[in-house]
Amino acid sequence: METLDFQRHPSRYLHWKLSVDGPVARLLMDVQEERPWRAGYPLKLNSYDLGVDLELADAIERLRFEHPQARVLVITSTRDKIFCAGANIYMLQSSSHPFKVNFCKFTNETRIGLEELARDSAVRTVAALNGTASGGGYELAIACDEIHLIDDGSSAVSFPETPLLAVLPGTGGLTRLVDKRKIRRDLADVFCTVAEGFRGSKALKSGLVDFVHSRSRFEAKVQERVQQLVAAPGAARSREAGIRLEPVASRVDGETIHYEFVTLRIDEKTRVATLTVRGPRGAEPATPQELRAKGCGAWAIRFARELDDALLQLRFAFDSIGVVVLKTEGDAAKVVAVDAMLAKHPDDWLVKETRLLIGRTLRRLDVTGRSFFARIEAGSCFAGTLFELALAADRSYMLNDLDRPVHVQLSPMNGGNGGAYSQAGANAPAYPMSHGLSRLQCRFLADPREMDAALSIREPIDAEQALELGLVTFAPDEIDWEDEVRVAIEERASLSPDALTGMEASLRFAGPESMETKIFGRLSAWQNWIFTRPNATGDEGALSLYGRPERPVFDYRRT
Amino acid sequence: METLDFQRHPSRYLHWKLSVDGPVARLLMDVQEERPWRAGYPLKLNSYDLGVDLELADAIERLRFEHPQARVLVITSTRDKIFCAGANIYMLQSSSHPFKVNFCKFTNETRIGLEELARDSAVRTVAALNGTASGGGYELAIACDEIHLIDDGSSAVSFPETPLLAVLPGTGGLTRLVDKRKIRRDLADVFCTVAEGFRGSKALKSGLVDFVHSRSRFEAKVQERVQQLVAAPGAARSREAGIRLEPVASRVDGETIHYEFVTLRIDEKTRVATLTVRGPRGAEPATPQELRAKGCGAWAIRFARELDDALLQLRFAFDSIGVVVLKTEGDAAKVVAVDAMLAKHPDDWLVKETRLLIGRTLRRLDVTGRSFFARIEAGSCFAGTLFELALAADRSYMLNDLDRPVHVQLSPMNGGNGGAYSQAGANAPAYPMSHGLSRLQCRFLADPREMDAALSIREPIDAEQALELGLVTFAPDEIDWEDEVRVAIEERASLSPDALTGMEASLRFAGPESMETKIFGRLSAWQNWIFTRPNATGDEGALSLYGRPERPVFDYRRT
Repeated sequence: METLDFQRHPSRYLHWKLSVDGPVARLLMDVQEERPWRAGYPLKLNSYDLGVDLELADAIERLRFEHPQARVLVITSTRDKIFCAGANIYMLQSSSHPFKVNFCKFTNETRIGLEELARDSAVRTVAALNGTASGGGYELAIACDEIHLIDDGSSAVSFPETPLLAVLPGTGGLTRLVDKRKIRRDLADVFCTVAEGFRGSKALKSGLVDFVHSRSRFEAKVQERVQQLVAAPGAARSREAGIRLEPVASRVDGETIHYEFVTLRIDEKTRVATLTVRGPRGAEPATPQELRAKGCGAWAIRFARELDDALLQLRFAFDSIGVVVLKTEGDAAKVVAVDAMLAKHPDDWLVKETRLLIGRTLRRLDVTGRSFFARIEAGSCFAGTLFELALAADRSYMLNDLDRPVHVQLSPMNGGNGGAYSQAGANAPAYPMSHGLSRLQCRFLADPREMDAALSIREPIDAEQALELGLVTFAPDEIDWEDEVRVAIEERASLSPDALTGMEASLRFAGPESMETKIFGRLSAWQNWIFTRPNATGDEGALSLYGRPERPVFDYRRT
Repeated sequence: METLDFQRHPSRYLHWKLSVDGPVARLLMDVQEERPWRAGYPLKLNSYDLGVDLELADAIERLRFEHPQARVLVITSTRDKIFCAGANIYMLQSSSHPFKVNFCKFTNETRIGLEELARDSAVRTVAALNGTASGGGYELAIACDEIHLIDDGSSAVSFPETPLLAVLPGTGGLTRLVDKRKIRRDLADVFCTVAEGFRGSKALKSGLVDFVHSRSRFEAKVQERVQQLVAAPGAARSREAGIRLEPVASRVDGETIHYEFVTLRIDEKTRVATLTVRGPRGAEPATPQELRAKGCGAWAIRFARELDDALLQLRFAFDSIGVVVLKTEGDAAKVVAVDAMLAKHPDDWLVKETRLLIGRTLRRLDVTGRSFFARIEAGSCFAGTLFELALAADRSYMLNDLDRPVHVQLSPMNGGNGGAYSQAGANAPAYPMSHGLSRLQCRFLADPREMDAALSIREPIDAEQALELGLVTFAPDEIDWEDEVRVAIEERASLSPDALTGMEASLRFAGPESMETKIFGRLSAWQNWIFTRPNATGDEGALSLYGRPERPVFDYRRT
């Protein structure tokens, strides 16, 4: 069985250079043309593919954990006249539909992660466009807090996707234009249909960038601004050294990927995977100090990074898997003990980053286009943080065995954060979904009192009570258990994967919408559609013909 | 040139019976199998197609205008054991992709119109399910305020689309389940994958229906409930007789459809249509009493109904048209005078219905998948209500001719309603978009003071000032005008229609999301995608094979 290597480290980056100098971090984009993620397309003009974005995502994680003193992140390029040309078009041309969709999803998550870094970890992000930023290159820029553009008579920001490729700036670009930067919709309309984009003062006047500097003063002006941001009120997350993130290790044994706390078993024949998360084994840190000492070996950090890797394996390496059975194993009391520590010190930088990491990983699960069924049985530890897995699942089955009762358990981490994060009140969710609600809030949208009732119970909850409280979907007894769960999984795996993806995306996010859910729900769905249309990806489609002399041929019927 | 007949009248309904008895209106579904919208599929089991839904939409309009005394609307069927089997599957099988998408959009609009009737016109809507409501049949039911289900051992509510057809309950169903009825997402997940649905007490317990009655008591119980609703506090909209809605008349002359106040010119060759709305000619009602007297001949009612018909012609009869040039002709002062009357009497039932009608028509334009360019030139009257057309456009071009200045003008109808609609405060928009903002609010999301500045000017505004205020996109002078507008239209018409549909859907609705925008933006985009996927509509897809003995064959790769 083939898995993919998603682990990156700055010392082995091919396409980026990360440097940190006191409070200022720099990410220099310097894409190696001849080192694409897979053979077949050179990465010209700082265009990117999954490999480039994996390094960017890794760099953001390292800033969080290894460089807590960083207060400003500058993203720029080493190339003259070019910041980033966006996603590589020949890569898109030659990719399958599922790969394209999952690639866009990952780049969206990375950009949202950058925004989370700014919002929740107080790292101000500055895009220093020393040259043209087009397509995904500009989408990366608008994921930053502020954008500086060089005014050299040629460098521009642009979204050429619609006019050149007949697809969308689908990595959050359209939504961020009108919702984040609040560009007037008619101006956004014009911008998105002018392939060459806007330069200098026109870009500034349209609100597409925040600063424009002449070529000769560009570096000095950006530097000046960075110093202003460093000197601005507000403390660094920490003056401490960070913790080291060691690579997430795994080994493949037959059809199973083994991590320390996570196992992913693939059954291609039935299209069912089993994803098991184990709880802590020995003693886990009881204080932030102990967490520092244990570093990335601490269960809370390690299981989340392993789960994240497993989800990416599912998305990219095993696209035939339709149903993922979520299981846990271990001692619920130990999970709840970790949660107590996480809940008690929300303002400690490392505790906070740990919570944010778990939150991001759970959101990665929320937006993964597979059916998740939680299987809650003897030996499981669906408690606190790990109960979020059951809440994230499309359904949960809990064994109701009177002889050997199974339990689930809630912790403060299933509720409000009790802390003081930058954008969130004391009752903001510890692990918010993309739309800002906790999974319990979303579940009990009809009557928040049901959530309060559940959250008030801190003891282990047996199957009948869990069913009564609305915490699980089904609680079959031991006679029905195996058959009922097996049949449900088989039935699910037999349904059309397309319909399920659309159905799940529509049912999972009841309640408010946010920029993030607009990106994943609205923009991504449209891009998903457009990627399957002949006008883009047919033999005579614009994406297919890009770089060739032939003109695309469109079916002009509008839908 | 072929146009379609969207005009309906209760005396000629094929599929519904509308009766109004004092405060109680009844809509009986009784679909004629042998009278489909187009030949080729019998409408068995009260299944519906566009023809059936056009009558439903007409009936709702008539309740608004012709029966202001109605306070409760009961929707039920004349068939034993069947309420409605949803959209006809053989119709969907044999329809083009653009038709399917536009059919779903129209049924969505009709259901949202039913919800608007309940919310803003205080007509309580009751779905009396005297038999099974499946698919779109249940979607119709959940668009009502409350649902009564007969408990006869066989009648169920169900969403069989995903398991049986590999498509979605895409007429708002999924969104309404979790967002309107707030069904728990895991229960919704189960419900949507069980083709036979839920019956009786199970449907009640899951929150899918509000009342369950035995077969013998069903009619009496519904009747009893209706009497309760009639007796509930709150007044009828009016005890007056309503006004009659005469059919919207039009004639085709060459490539042009002529209405009284609207003209739609089709140019299939360039894929450009010109949609012109003319302002009032003579004296228009200055009081609600005069409006009653003039009835549906009043400009405000007539132009809106004509515009609505023209938009449906565009969607269903002319799917190759990519760009619609919006024009107006007439006397701005006369439009502003009508607006003054509409703004002054927001609580008069007929004024209110007129405003709601215009609002619905503008929203129909907002969600129409064509590019709209407003062309503001000499002789135009983009003022007040008609200025909303320019605001609804993706772009606007205003001629800046110093010798013969062109003007636009704002009125109170571009701002808050100043009235007391049920759900809206005094500053709620007179013509809200689907997400609840006015078009000016959406336009000036970045800085509401810019909206206030514009709204404070009630005099005619020339091109330079309009550009300065941000009210128009471009203001070319008379030398550049013709070329600039012509080139912009040609360029737009040359782009991929799919990419434009996705781009426009993403740029038009900046700001908050509502159930309505979730339906049009998220759910519809997913359904749009699924309708193009081989798993649904390929030769071996589930929708294609429905009713045949072969089993569908799926590509199980998940995206």
